[in-house]
Amino acid sequence: MGSLIRVAALLVMTAVVAAQPADLRARVGAYVEAHQKQIVGELLELLAIPNVAADRSNIRRNAEHLHGLLGRHGLTADILETAGNPLVYGALDVPGATRTVLFYCHYDGQPVDAAKWNQPDPFKPVLRGEGKDARIYARSASDDKSPIVALVAALDALKAAGLAPSSNVRIILDGEEEASSPSLVPAIARYKDRLRADLMVILDGPAHSSGRPTLVYGARGIATLDLTVFGPKSGVHSGNYGNWMPNPALRLAALLASMKDDDGRVLVAGYYDAVAPLTAEERAMLDAVPDDSARMLEAFGVARPEKAYPRLQDALQQPTLNIRGLASSFVGAGARTIVPDRATAALDLRLVKETPAPDLVAKLRAHIEKQGFHLVDADPDAATRAKYGKLARLTMTGPVMNAFRTPTSDPQARAILASMTKTFGQPPVQLRMLGGSVPIAPFIEALGFPALLVPIVNFDNNQHEENENLRLGAFFDGIVTIAAVLRM
Amino acid sequence: MGSLIRVAALLVMTAVVAAQPADLRARVGAYVEAHQKQIVGELLELLAIPNVAADRSNIRRNAEHLHGLLGRHGLTADILETAGNPLVYGALDVPGATRTVLFYCHYDGQPVDAAKWNQPDPFKPVLRGEGKDARIYARSASDDKSPIVALVAALDALKAAGLAPSSNVRIILDGEEEASSPSLVPAIARYKDRLRADLMVILDGPAHSSGRPTLVYGARGIATLDLTVFGPKSGVHSGNYGNWMPNPALRLAALLASMKDDDGRVLVAGYYDAVAPLTAEERAMLDAVPDDSARMLEAFGVARPEKAYPRLQDALQQPTLNIRGLASSFVGAGARTIVPDRATAALDLRLVKETPAPDLVAKLRAHIEKQGFHLVDADPDAATRAKYGKLARLTMTGPVMNAFRTPTSDPQARAILASMTKTFGQPPVQLRMLGGSVPIAPFIEALGFPALLVPIVNFDNNQHEENENLRLGAFFDGIVTIAAVLRM
Repeated sequence: MGSLIRVAALLVMTAVVAAQPADLRARVGAYVEAHQKQIVGELLELLAIPNVAADRSNIRRNAEHLHGLLGRHGLTADILETAGNPLVYGALDVPGATRTVLFYCHYDGQPVDAAKWNQPDPFKPVLRGEGKDARIYARSASDDKSPIVALVAALDALKAAGLAPSSNVRIILDGEEEASSPSLVPAIARYKDRLRADLMVILDGPAHSSGRPTLVYGARGIATLDLTVFGPKSGVHSGNYGNWMPNPALRLAALLASMKDDDGRVLVAGYYDAVAPLTAEERAMLDAVPDDSARMLEAFGVARPEKAYPRLQDALQQPTLNIRGLASSFVGAGARTIVPDRATAALDLRLVKETPAPDLVAKLRAHIEKQGFHLVDADPDAATRAKYGKLARLTMTGPVMNAFRTPTSDPQARAILASMTKTFGQPPVQLRMLGGSVPIAPFIEALGFPALLVPIVNFDNNQHEENENLRLGAFFDGIVTIAAVLRM
Repeated sequence: MGSLIRVAALLVMTAVVAAQPADLRARVGAYVEAHQKQIVGELLELLAIPNVAADRSNIRRNAEHLHGLLGRHGLTADILETAGNPLVYGALDVPGATRTVLFYCHYDGQPVDAAKWNQPDPFKPVLRGEGKDARIYARSASDDKSPIVALVAALDALKAAGLAPSSNVRIILDGEEEASSPSLVPAIARYKDRLRADLMVILDGPAHSSGRPTLVYGARGIATLDLTVFGPKSGVHSGNYGNWMPNPALRLAALLASMKDDDGRVLVAGYYDAVAPLTAEERAMLDAVPDDSARMLEAFGVARPEKAYPRLQDALQQPTLNIRGLASSFVGAGARTIVPDRATAALDLRLVKETPAPDLVAKLRAHIEKQGFHLVDADPDAATRAKYGKLARLTMTGPVMNAFRTPTSDPQARAILASMTKTFGQPPVQLRMLGGSVPIAPFIEALGFPALLVPIVNFDNNQHEENENLRLGAFFDGIVTIAAVLRM
């Protein structure tokens, strides 16, 4: 039975690959070269519309703009209303196609701290540099507006080359990804027919740092938490009571330090226990990923990675325990000489398929209690304060996103791999797991068909941070990569 | 020689004490009882003028108001201009007085975070509660405007009782204490004659938590520092690089945790080495301080003090290493899923006389280096980032205030002690060191005469924090205490 399926898959794959011209890369590349101005212009227009998920009126402007964009590029476009931000939808039926591919991108972006940017406004894109090394600086330049423009450019390029996509195309553009996509799963019931497909291709995240085409089989999940250690009811004078009044910032520091060793390995008991060991095929796949760490470290300005995970690909196969923020009283201009009333660490735990959030959070709670803390669910009352010397609270601060992972043996995965290999003359970089999270796991589960990621943007794009940017060379190459997927 | 001095001191003391009526407490108390409304009214008026040191125009309004207040209460008043905020000055010569006492208070207050207060405006005083337990809530209600009003009320009370102060009175009101009093020492050269005295009495800080009259021989100094640990040049996505990119918030946590043990004892090598052991007299004095820890802990909502210093008086004889603030990226609404670019702890080191700031800071730097950090003086450049795995910066964030301590054997100290003992029928609580800092050490050194503190406000006044308050009972008792000092 297993081998029958494999044979069937190979037949399908062969048929599709046969339909793909050997010079696809050159033909699409030439189109992009000739139409750079127009393609970049369309991206700049899109980036000029602010897109923080909570900014409803601008989100609506984005949706309407994208609706027009998909229509202009030959898709049957629609705005799909939800209880939250609208989804933008596009469809293109290809006569004779035996497969339907649903492309997923998101048009919302992370909140901005405009004062930290090297430009007045993150929503007024700035172009710096020359040629393929030029970069567009703007919120969502990389995450995730450029893949949308790259996708319609790839469709145009195929059309100009007289080629149809080898699959029916469906496009769904999410307006709440950075707010955890609450409307995506509910939309399935309402728009079932439009979302029917054989494969989902997620265009999001950075390509491998080598800049080579990249195919990704899964992504980590995420859970976000706040960990607060309580001190006195309100801050007390650090002189009058210093040495005597326990300091919650120090206790938080000691608690956090107890959670990880100096090498970056989580010390919380059992944290890694459930993680599946790699198969030989997976091990070989990870080993084949180019080691680009020297260049990445230089770009990030860091001398050495964590000792526990000197190779990035190994690091991404494991769950994380990351401190994403610290706060206690004030630092800088407003600083006061007190023992603070509390100290909080904002944490994010990246999940792999075998370590769902409830499991890791339970282990984290047990660890905190083992360090002598009494865990409370709300600000402690007087009786609780009088009883326990060490008080802390651990709260989830957002919905959990689960991890997902499509087997490398999946026939659709094998078909994309073959098309990308043919287009570029060598296999793409294959990543077993993307380190980042896409709020796609429950969507995939509910849809019932496999999903793959084809990330195209430069790795050093300052995603989620100030000065987010897109390298034009990566963008143009990404159009060719997407064309290869359209011709899988 | 030693015993000659002692005999002379006793003679002086006896002469002054003889001049003090046995019923001073009752007579001043009765005056206060009869004039509560007027005295509290004068304080409320003063508290209604915003007094953050940087707010120049309101600081000027405070100075002018205080100038009028001192004049109305029978002092020759003046505004002494400085390069910074003005000093307010008052003088009262007493025929036949053989001693001049310079009273020091400050009229500026800590910055406010109005949103955290239980009232709309920290500069619109709110009165809550009944009788002597009623409290005035306002910035500087305790720190340090009420002692100013208490001082003029004490002068009025003596006058009403037909008593002159036993010393010439000088008053200096500082407008920059919370900004480290930069104009105080320079003012000595300019206003030398007016600042000539035999003793300085500092009216600042909380009285002992028992509420008993309190006499203090010294105060700790302070140095404030920021400790920053550097991560990647800018924050990087915690999913794409989590487990691989070292996290500066975790490294800061581990570094801070390495500085103190779980009991609150500083682990920095040699931190306590220079601290002088207590003499038998000092030990007895500390032992005589009432242990009010149960009530304090309840008020602060804390189950147990630091294990290293279960008794507050012991805690105050040692230098501190306090975390007064933590900051790294964002916590709460703006939180982003990144490995932050840096993490900073705002520290304050409370100093004792034998541990000046340069000594403790040098030991702290050595400790940080021993933990594997390379210390930089500015944001690290690319070459520094490439070379060192662990980068940190330790910077002083304000001027150092030294500690001071007047020997208990000082004749002026013995005279005040005797007057307070007679007035209240028992010795005051005597504190070898106040835990907090007064920017007075260089001022004392430059003036060349001894200084003592007579703090009067309630210990649980939320000094330096939101909801700062003054218990009226403490305020009224404080007027009697100051009258005893005026009649020393």
